[in-house]
Amino acid sequence: MRTVLRRSMALGVAFLIGASAGLSGADVKADILKILDLQKAAWNRQDIEGFMAFYWRSERLTYQSGADRMRGWGSLLERYKKSYAAANWGTLAFTDLEVNVLSADSAYVIGRWALDLKDKAKGGVFTIIFRRLPEGWRIVHDHSS
Amino acid sequence: MRTVLRRSMALGVAFLIGASAGLSGADVKADILKILDLQKAAWNRQDIEGFMAFYWRSERLTYQSGADRMRGWGSLLERYKKSYAAANWGTLAFTDLEVNVLSADSAYVIGRWALDLKDKAKGGVFTIIFRRLPEGWRIVHDHSS
Repeated sequence: MRTVLRRSMALGVAFLIGASAGLSGADVKADILKILDLQKAAWNRQDIEGFMAFYWRSERLTYQSGADRMRGWGSLLERYKKSYAAANWGTLAFTDLEVNVLSADSAYVIGRWALDLKDKAKGGVFTIIFRRLPEGWRIVHDHSS
Repeated sequence: MRTVLRRSMALGVAFLIGASAGLSGADVKADILKILDLQKAAWNRQDIEGFMAFYWRSERLTYQSGADRMRGWGSLLERYKKSYAAANWGTLAFTDLEVNVLSADSAYVIGRWALDLKDKAKGGVFTIIFRRLPEGWRIVHDHSS
């Protein structure tokens, strides 16, 4: 029940953010920073579905990390579960975020990520690409290293 | 003289590619693949200026690799020289390229890079973001890992 409620909340927020049309560059930046904040909060309450709500739910979602490329929303979810569920997800933080608006319907973000796990800390940089789809702003590509 | 000629050729091609307006998505994809091909050819004749001709010549150019972020065209050029000039640049190849057009003036490319140096081989994946600027299509952000 709690999980269902969390997921409904995340999808509700995702819908509300996506529903506003005719946004300015400043509005787009604010909306995208809000999404990253929601993702961080979802991760930090071990709500991986809430975290994943802002990734494009498609087989065409791409994800690059280290020397690997992966494809598909379900594959990314499984990757996260395999990597971090056993460590209870740890605590995620984003810093040095820069949102660059490319058009009314696309933007990219560069930033640093840090993940404090029980017994170690991980971190690096990321480049994520957002598109405004009918369902709202979604990450269509993520490159983390 | 040879270097000057090479640079002039690279800039000339960069101008010609950028000058055509009202391109379709297919045209944009073809132009961007052509740029990557020109970059590869420039690198492989040790013409680092030709390779760099398609990066945004700005302090706002960003480059992420491993856990680092850098900024500025000149800094990236210095980084390449420091890393690869002594090894005579090696042989660069790009594979698995996917060009995604985001708007009339922006696109991103994901792909794999491989660099055969004298005594070792390096490689990984990249995400690069192109914008069509007054001077033509330029890479405004590069994330390689």
